[in-house]
Amino acid sequence: MKKNVLNILKTSGSQWVSGEDICRRLSVSRTAVWKHIKSLNRDGYYIETQPRRGYRLVTVPDLLYPNEITSGLNTKFMGQEVIHYQQLLSTNDEAKKLASQGAGEGTIVVAEQQIGGKGRLGRKWHSANASDIMFSLILRPNINPAETPQVSMLAAVAVAKAIGKTHVVKPRIKWPNDLLINGSKLCGILVEISAEADRVRHVVLGIGINVNSTQEDWPDEIQHKTTSLREETGEIQSRHDLIKNVLYELEELYLLWQHQGFADVLKLWRQWCVSQRCQARVETIRGSFSGWIEGVNTEGHLLLRLNDGEVKTFSSGDVSLRL
Amino acid sequence: MKKNVLNILKTSGSQWVSGEDICRRLSVSRTAVWKHIKSLNRDGYYIETQPRRGYRLVTVPDLLYPNEITSGLNTKFMGQEVIHYQQLLSTNDEAKKLASQGAGEGTIVVAEQQIGGKGRLGRKWHSANASDIMFSLILRPNINPAETPQVSMLAAVAVAKAIGKTHVVKPRIKWPNDLLINGSKLCGILVEISAEADRVRHVVLGIGINVNSTQEDWPDEIQHKTTSLREETGEIQSRHDLIKNVLYELEELYLLWQHQGFADVLKLWRQWCVSQRCQARVETIRGSFSGWIEGVNTEGHLLLRLNDGEVKTFSSGDVSLRL
Repeated sequence: MKKNVLNILKTSGSQWVSGEDICRRLSVSRTAVWKHIKSLNRDGYYIETQPRRGYRLVTVPDLLYPNEITSGLNTKFMGQEVIHYQQLLSTNDEAKKLASQGAGEGTIVVAEQQIGGKGRLGRKWHSANASDIMFSLILRPNINPAETPQVSMLAAVAVAKAIGKTHVVKPRIKWPNDLLINGSKLCGILVEISAEADRVRHVVLGIGINVNSTQEDWPDEIQHKTTSLREETGEIQSRHDLIKNVLYELEELYLLWQHQGFADVLKLWRQWCVSQRCQARVETIRGSFSGWIEGVNTEGHLLLRLNDGEVKTFSSGDVSLRL
Repeated sequence: MKKNVLNILKTSGSQWVSGEDICRRLSVSRTAVWKHIKSLNRDGYYIETQPRRGYRLVTVPDLLYPNEITSGLNTKFMGQEVIHYQQLLSTNDEAKKLASQGAGEGTIVVAEQQIGGKGRLGRKWHSANASDIMFSLILRPNINPAETPQVSMLAAVAVAKAIGKTHVVKPRIKWPNDLLINGSKLCGILVEISAEADRVRHVVLGIGINVNSTQEDWPDEIQHKTTSLREETGEIQSRHDLIKNVLYELEELYLLWQHQGFADVLKLWRQWCVSQRCQARVETIRGSFSGWIEGVNTEGHLLLRLNDGEVKTFSSGDVSLRL
């Protein structure tokens, strides 16, 4: 009902709507309307009130409320179900829980702030309150566990495309799925799966994009290698527009991948990739290797020509580029 | 404390132990001892009581209590932590929950009965009460998701070895991880993982062995293709002995695999395998294929020579043998 009150105010734009009008259209009492308006005010919607004119929506809060994400979201299923939190330990953990309870494909868990956010390989992911975009998406592709890295590469392309389309900056992908601008990290992606030996049950795709956070928000030790859209453009960016664009691109690429396979996704990935044909160092659980990046193979594995000429294939690892 | 009372009775064998003696050794009151004895009786331990002689343990219930599994268990970590339930929906689900909360490697969840047991590919796993062995083991190997099938093949060998060593029957492995006797199913294995794209966080290995259940316990539609150790040997088998043997073999093979890699495990797997060099049909999510099984490759994938001569490689699928 609160959502319906909000929608009436939104569709009225800068026009006043009388309380009576809202009552009639929603078949509720004046008191009920007034309670919803108060609750919307508490949520951060600034709604002007005048005795004889009624109500008028002045500003929408820059919070990733379900209604703000789904209104105008041009997707079939991606992000159409939104679970919103002011604060979570980890959106991935929450999404994993929901996924194992049967939440549908495309459901996203969004948090204004993560206090126990995770990066790849058990690292921390830092986040400022209500400045960035952090969400986890539940997917149920029909794949085996070995194909999981394809999901994270797909996601990297989707975010890169969404940012490249609507902002002046053009991020680059560093294998396998970091997004960089001039070598600084703009976005991190963490894919987790629950699977049988030969069949993935569900994928949880965690995406963190530094949108409006700034140098002061980041710990000292990562400041020199971190950036945000605000830092790059000098302007505060709309998180609502960006998350909608990301969800749109994610759906497009996901469907392409499901119907056509990985080849087309990989082609796009290569176009957005920075880590091709340059010196790099790859750290893995089995040691550290230096060489020349030759690109990726058809499965998305990294090819590194070692200094002795041997070409080594990596399905996982941490890459430091020498640009 | 109850466990300590039980241990005193056990080490005394068929000898009587006085209540006084137990009080002294455990520094507890007579009333406390008496309460523990009553509680043990409720658990199914039959303890004889005589006024002047004290207590004597007559029979141990055939239930998979932690104490019954760990006493005499010859492993370093495998099964040293046991969580026991009379009834669970699914031991794998419970183990997954515990694993994500940080339960240690080697922890097992045992249930006398599963009422929502799962087989591979979302199928049901039927179980009779307190007749069979159903447990789920938490492992934390340093592998990537694509290597997960190795765990299930390793487990199949471990169970086959444990059964082959202590019982007259010799089960055979059907790719990838079913155990058969004369074509009927004796044991099923369900491996589930929680993972990042390139790193497994934990493995839950579910093992169901038909020990003492009989034809009447199984649904009509699977009776003709199901068997148990009791059906095969004509005798009730000790679940305690078997689970200890399985845990012992699991630890041996797991350590071999971790230290030497998959090759040695695969060599053993091939020795126990039935599904080599015979006609078979393989059902996969991408279709159904008939041909001649050529064996498995070094990664444990099935090689099937189709009728047109082409050899197809399967990393997953359901095999029906034409023996």
